[in-house]
Amino acid sequence: MREIAIFSGSAHPGLAEEICAHLGEPVSPSHVSRFANDCLEVQLQANCRERDVFLIQPLVAPVQENLVELLLMLDAARGASAARTTVVMPHFAYARSDKKDTPRISIGGRLVADLLVAAGAGRILTMTLHSPQVHGFFSVPVDHLHALRELAGHFKNHDLSSTVVVSPDLGNAKTATAFSRMLGVSVAAGAKQRFSDDRVVITDIIGDVAGRDAIVLDDEIARGSTTVEIVHKLRERGARSVRVACTHGLFADGALDRITATGVTEIVCTNTAPIPEENRIPELTVLSIASALAEAIKRIHDGESVSALFDQH
Amino acid sequence: MREIAIFSGSAHPGLAEEICAHLGEPVSPSHVSRFANDCLEVQLQANCRERDVFLIQPLVAPVQENLVELLLMLDAARGASAARTTVVMPHFAYARSDKKDTPRISIGGRLVADLLVAAGAGRILTMTLHSPQVHGFFSVPVDHLHALRELAGHFKNHDLSSTVVVSPDLGNAKTATAFSRMLGVSVAAGAKQRFSDDRVVITDIIGDVAGRDAIVLDDEIARGSTTVEIVHKLRERGARSVRVACTHGLFADGALDRITATGVTEIVCTNTAPIPEENRIPELTVLSIASALAEAIKRIHDGESVSALFDQH
Amino acid sequence: MREIAIFSGSAHPGLAEEICAHLGEPVSPSHVSRFANDCLEVQLQANCRERDVFLIQPLVAPVQENLVELLLMLDAARGASAARTTVVMPHFAYARSDKKDTPRISIGGRLVADLLVAAGAGRILTMTLHSPQVHGFFSVPVDHLHALRELAGHFKNHDLSSTVVVSPDLGNAKTATAFSRMLGVSVAAGAKQRFSDDRVVITDIIGDVAGRDAIVLDDEIARGSTTVEIVHKLRERGARSVRVACTHGLFADGALDRITATGVTEIVCTNTAPIPEENRIPELTVLSIASALAEAIKRIHDGESVSALFDQH
Amino acid sequence: MREIAIFSGSAHPGLAEEICAHLGEPVSPSHVSRFANDCLEVQLQANCRERDVFLIQPLVAPVQENLVELLLMLDAARGASAARTTVVMPHFAYARSDKKDTPRISIGGRLVADLLVAAGAGRILTMTLHSPQVHGFFSVPVDHLHALRELAGHFKNHDLSSTVVVSPDLGNAKTATAFSRMLGVSVAAGAKQRFSDDRVVITDIIGDVAGRDAIVLDDEIARGSTTVEIVHKLRERGARSVRVACTHGLFADGALDRITATGVTEIVCTNTAPIPEENRIPELTVLSIASALAEAIKRIHDGESVSALFDQH
Amino acid sequence: MREIAIFSGSAHPGLAEEICAHLGEPVSPSHVSRFANDCLEVQLQANCRERDVFLIQPLVAPVQENLVELLLMLDAARGASAARTTVVMPHFAYARSDKKDTPRISIGGRLVADLLVAAGAGRILTMTLHSPQVHGFFSVPVDHLHALRELAGHFKNHDLSSTVVVSPDLGNAKTATAFSRMLGVSVAAGAKQRFSDDRVVITDIIGDVAGRDAIVLDDEIARGSTTVEIVHKLRERGARSVRVACTHGLFADGALDRITATGVTEIVCTNTAPIPEENRIPELTVLSIASALAEAIKRIHDGESVSALFDQH
Amino acid sequence: MREIAIFSGSAHPGLAEEICAHLGEPVSPSHVSRFANDCLEVQLQANCRERDVFLIQPLVAPVQENLVELLLMLDAARGASAARTTVVMPHFAYARSDKKDTPRISIGGRLVADLLVAAGAGRILTMTLHSPQVHGFFSVPVDHLHALRELAGHFKNHDLSSTVVVSPDLGNAKTATAFSRMLGVSVAAGAKQRFSDDRVVITDIIGDVAGRDAIVLDDEIARGSTTVEIVHKLRERGARSVRVACTHGLFADGALDRITATGVTEIVCTNTAPIPEENRIPELTVLSIASALAEAIKRIHDGESVSALFDQH
Repeated sequence: MREIAIFSGSAHPGLAEEICAHLGEPVSPSHVSRFANDCLEVQLQANCRERDVFLIQPLVAPVQENLVELLLMLDAARGASAARTTVVMPHFAYARSDKKDTPRISIGGRLVADLLVAAGAGRILTMTLHSPQVHGFFSVPVDHLHALRELAGHFKNHDLSSTVVVSPDLGNAKTATAFSRMLGVSVAAGAKQRFSDDRVVITDIIGDVAGRDAIVLDDEIARGSTTVEIVHKLRERGARSVRVACTHGLFADGALDRITATGVTEIVCTNTAPIPEENRIPELTVLSIASALAEAIKRIHDGESVSALFDQH
Repeated sequence: MREIAIFSGSAHPGLAEEICAHLGEPVSPSHVSRFANDCLEVQLQANCRERDVFLIQPLVAPVQENLVELLLMLDAARGASAARTTVVMPHFAYARSDKKDTPRISIGGRLVADLLVAAGAGRILTMTLHSPQVHGFFSVPVDHLHALRELAGHFKNHDLSSTVVVSPDLGNAKTATAFSRMLGVSVAAGAKQRFSDDRVVITDIIGDVAGRDAIVLDDEIARGSTTVEIVHKLRERGARSVRVACTHGLFADGALDRITATGVTEIVCTNTAPIPEENRIPELTVLSIASALAEAIKRIHDGESVSALFDQH
Repeated sequence: MREIAIFSGSAHPGLAEEICAHLGEPVSPSHVSRFANDCLEVQLQANCRERDVFLIQPLVAPVQENLVELLLMLDAARGASAARTTVVMPHFAYARSDKKDTPRISIGGRLVADLLVAAGAGRILTMTLHSPQVHGFFSVPVDHLHALRELAGHFKNHDLSSTVVVSPDLGNAKTATAFSRMLGVSVAAGAKQRFSDDRVVITDIIGDVAGRDAIVLDDEIARGSTTVEIVHKLRERGARSVRVACTHGLFADGALDRITATGVTEIVCTNTAPIPEENRIPELTVLSIASALAEAIKRIHDGESVSALFDQH
Repeated sequence: MREIAIFSGSAHPGLAEEICAHLGEPVSPSHVSRFANDCLEVQLQANCRERDVFLIQPLVAPVQENLVELLLMLDAARGASAARTTVVMPHFAYARSDKKDTPRISIGGRLVADLLVAAGAGRILTMTLHSPQVHGFFSVPVDHLHALRELAGHFKNHDLSSTVVVSPDLGNAKTATAFSRMLGVSVAAGAKQRFSDDRVVITDIIGDVAGRDAIVLDDEIARGSTTVEIVHKLRERGARSVRVACTHGLFADGALDRITATGVTEIVCTNTAPIPEENRIPELTVLSIASALAEAIKRIHDGESVSALFDQH
Repeated sequence: MREIAIFSGSAHPGLAEEICAHLGEPVSPSHVSRFANDCLEVQLQANCRERDVFLIQPLVAPVQENLVELLLMLDAARGASAARTTVVMPHFAYARSDKKDTPRISIGGRLVADLLVAAGAGRILTMTLHSPQVHGFFSVPVDHLHALRELAGHFKNHDLSSTVVVSPDLGNAKTATAFSRMLGVSVAAGAKQRFSDDRVVITDIIGDVAGRDAIVLDDEIARGSTTVEIVHKLRERGARSVRVACTHGLFADGALDRITATGVTEIVCTNTAPIPEENRIPELTVLSIASALAEAIKRIHDGESVSALFDQH
Repeated sequence: MREIAIFSGSAHPGLAEEICAHLGEPVSPSHVSRFANDCLEVQLQANCRERDVFLIQPLVAPVQENLVELLLMLDAARGASAARTTVVMPHFAYARSDKKDTPRISIGGRLVADLLVAAGAGRILTMTLHSPQVHGFFSVPVDHLHALRELAGHFKNHDLSSTVVVSPDLGNAKTATAFSRMLGVSVAAGAKQRFSDDRVVITDIIGDVAGRDAIVLDDEIARGSTTVEIVHKLRERGARSVRVACTHGLFADGALDRITATGVTEIVCTNTAPIPEENRIPELTVLSIASALAEAIKRIHDGESVSALFDQH
């Protein structure tokens, strides 16, 4: 089998280190320079020729810097005769730009998918895309993982006797239902109602939450407005305690402050995005998806089934 | 401006005739042959050279026959030096294949989008895609219309004093809300709950329906199982009467029988798919979207904004 | 070497079974679903990752169904990270659409070749294309086999002392000449004359056939009109007996009845297309090309020369 | 309408002058340089921006020089923002490389078609391709003319009372039949038989030629071996006189000497290839297809049907 | 003629305003949003359908932000059915990444050229590329202007009786020579010598500069190190005064301070890059190239020759 | 590892033999035919299936013949299922066409790069490109070697005590500086001045050459005008002796005569281009780069770093 070579961009070197530790492989060195005219140059500093190259770079803030850096790395790997280049992108921020809900905008998720392929991406390894249709934006194979196993593992240590999993959005309750089955608990969901084009309010909770310990499950928390709203509604409906769980913990614009102010017991996310020091508060638990990504990389490299390991949804 | 040339495939010649009547343009003749070995040949029998060509073909059953016929027409138009070829595909059946929810399947919506472009499609005019993300599967411009104006026009002739619009699915209630605002009535939605991977049941209705005249709004009715279920739930919750409305009336496998058996007052659909004679029952009202498509074709041909006319959602 | 994975579409599962028996490999399971809206979904039910995938699907009737199914399988294999995907298409029906003899038609053979590549075909294994130029319609490598060895093997068991091989068409007599040399017999050919654009008549036989046992060799028999005509002409010229041989036995619209009615001694074809039960009459001998295809698949997989085995013509 | 700009390569400037005279347009100036390292540079010396550009260059000897020059002109026109570039290539030499009759060769006709498109060709105007399938090698629109009208016009001035048109090859007798109908005379054809892989001999003439004035019609005469053979066979069968007609008069390696030595009355070709001074012998009549090409260019430029004018075959 | 629509990205709205004022056309409105997850969305707020769209965006700092914004605008214009989209990019920062002088880096100029085309750029209008070969990185037509006319116009108002134009780099002295001829003055050049891989020093001045008024001409000033070095060398060689002129005034990291500290009389640049307020010092003269770009846009739109106006070099 | 298969075109079979001798591999047989109509056909006469194919063909005169032959070989290798095809093109003549210094010409270097890729080139191995930017014209990986090691090896046998390396062109003096460091000697350079658009004259020598033994180093000598000029200038400045060295010895139009007439001690080149018998004069030393190319081919085949061996510049 061709040898493996794993590089990390600037977005999340800690995650790359952790993944490589699981694999028993080094993070191959690379060097980013910024010229006087603000252009970037990335040098991959290990032989790529006929190697099975993996580039680890979640698309997190600063998104544009990280995206262009990734494109430069892809092109460098191609020019250096990599046998195959896989982008390991546990968070794909542009996946939220998945439809044309206003005239004359780009569907950014499709555009970025095309740019990655134009720069030389041969396959994508990603996690919990905002909508499953985004998979179809890529013209190269995508392995689409989720973090439910990791999140469930965390909660299994708690007393789950009167727990309910809550989806903030009834439309996307499929994942919450799968999660509740993993925990052996019941499921509920918020019902959103649209009052005008720009105001959506959670008007109801479908399912029994009174006196229960709620775990709100979402794919991503950015500003946290929906999270705050569902927590208030859960309290209103008599929930005993509320925990919040998500895959992508972006926590922009003081989101953590706003969520902790609601009195939630705990906030759980994974490390698909890096957590800056100031966000490492006691209420926040960060689970690592490094071993899941490492296992997927190993299987991709060895030509074994990834879907056999992870239920894709 | 370049001249226009409009051709119809075999899928729905009646709709093509109607659209062209609105435009005051003829349906240009074409001829389909089937050889002894079951291969198709389509001849476009009017000059396409430097013309602005439109090919009208909804992807309805028999889907594979209609798809290959359309691909042959696209390639013929390209070979005949059409200046631009627009596919007018008011129903895109493969749009439902929009995600990879099982390993090792094709995302059919993306594949068919790529095939249409490979065969020469320069742009797409379509209606009410199953999910808005499918727009992003196309690498050519898409004009994505809806039929709410036509449906609302029909119901405005009724007494709407105690009417409520009902979305069978809370997750996609955005369209129902827009529709209710057009009619000046309230909105409600069914809350689906997933009990196992393959069983989804409507467990609740969010919003007030007791004593009201309900209009159930869906994008498409194929087998009609969801429709039947929501009607039963509405009756259970005391709805006074139930009407059913959708854009794509496919009515497969005796769907109309099953829906009328629930005692609905009326079933309303549009003619994006042809309605076979045996389905033309008294309870079914078929509205024409021919004038909307004709107006869009006119604007595409004249280089005027289509979004200015139709609110895209 | 990468492992092999062989799947069969719906067109001819029996042939796939036979090929795989020769190879000592299983036919990997796959599953075709048809949705209420008539769309197909194919799931490949064995790991394709980094495998050398072969998809067996002759393009026979129903051609459009089989073609779209094949395109879905190709895309599924690509999405499932197949290392390479070879289409094993022993009969390519659209090869007859190889020129633009009427304005504004598609050259279907080229279009389908492009569609297969667009969907992910990396190479093609086919047999006895209608014209050798069709090879050039593909932008990926093609292995183009013939069935002369199999046909010759059958006839070598007969008394060939006064046999003549007859090509219905003098223009394409090259194959008949090669075949006659394999059998060590003489060759003759029908001379077609065109009386008007749509009427071609065999007016003459070039070569000595009187008192001989004729074997008429054609690439394909669909409606069988040419076959019937050449048999009549051979009788007229005093042939003692007539046998008919072809690679692709499509036998559409009662072709077998019409041919047997001429009193031919035997009709021989291969199993590139499936033979329905009602066509399995005593006069028909079906030879298997499964071992030839198996040998070619083996050589493709092992990187050995295919042309070294089969004379390509 | 966009303005037209017509350039000529080095292959056949006389034809370009003649075409442009018919169109009342100038041949726009261009300049070819050859550098010390044998590389070519072509400058188009008239504005191409948003023009409808036509590049006249038959692929005749020296074929490689003319091909690369044409590719450079195409790329120059693209870089100079031509709105559309049409290659006017009345003779396409590589069309004879249309199949893979030996392992590990290129199908040159397909390769050159792809190179022309890669360099910027938007459409092709050509004449009498060696086989009609070659049309399908191009991924851009092709207008495929023939010269039968010009050839027929010449012979109509003769006494045709006992004339027969003869195709050297029965397989391709379709064109000869069309030609005979234009002249209102009968048709015959040579029957070729293959004795070994590299020796094909005309063994017979199908149709009545004794005492007749034969017009042998072929697509192209290069070395002239087939022509010499058919003339001998016609004399053997008692033809009163023989004339030879073809579209592409390449006349390589003393072909004219060999043909005139058979005592033919006249050799007629068109000017798709330039006729060098030493070949301008009294027995040779060169007809001009400039007005046909000019008319096709005019129609392409004006967006009128070309097939309406010329029967394509 | 199709109508024109001109949009500006965030990089340099002032230049867009100026260009549009020259053209008598409005800058069409557009709107940039930044989401909580740091992704950008650009909406073009005027009809693009069948318009001749121009997007004005020099690639200046912040380069990555401006590049991704431009890619989103290109894709939006394509999706909105623009007839043609031209990128007006007077400064192309990545042009300096034009070779692979270290293993395993990307040639950024080529990559960005490919990304622009992948996102929908149909043509490029740019100015004074760092090396003329970068033109060849683009697969779409490029109009490559220079600013010599504007710079010369400025200096013609001075007493030029004992002026000499100085190129800092002898290798690229061609432009300086052209410039000196425009001013009717003599030319000189710095001779750089490389002492080690990373240290290049100007060791000599070729040409007479003693007692002269020197105008140092460069394509771009970023950190200004070369400029400072050549000014010192000129003083050493007895130049009476030194002025500095360039097309692209990037002035990074205190460049202006360092250059003015050498006592130069004047620094002249153009407005291809925006000049921040803090750089607007008395010694700096900023010339506008807006009218040159406007004239080029007009000619591109009208299909007139751009090279006829500007000598390209 | 896949097996290797090395073929040679007609341009320089001697070099191919030499390279293969170093590798201990045979030159696989191939056969070029020229048809009566001047078209070429190349047959690769060894199995290519899944092989790592190398095609050795410098682009030297006759450039057009050699280029088309190479394109045919590439396409043949692709059609024959080569796993990967590398073009070994030690001299790339069209690299000099690297910019658009006149309107409406092709940038030939980019065009030929695209043609090679269109015909199937998967990677390029080349030597001493005219400008390093030409690397960026290719969309496939390029290994770009230089011949400094070979040239230095030759001169190290001389007395170098008072030697100076001279670059004819100050702008490209980087290579000369690297070369001088290899030899441990000093460096100088000619300063070219442009007097008009078409006349460039060496006006000065930067660096000390009086009494020294000069080695003029250039990338390529075609007509030799620059060489003759620099030699004269060196004599003028008192050089004791002059040797001339270059990578690409094309020596067109009597270049060797003109250079030897200046009284140079020796002319040294490599065998990237074949040296015809009449040029094998005593003053000319031809060094072989066969072992360097062989080593690079070996490393490419084995997936080892090429840059680790050769400093790329």
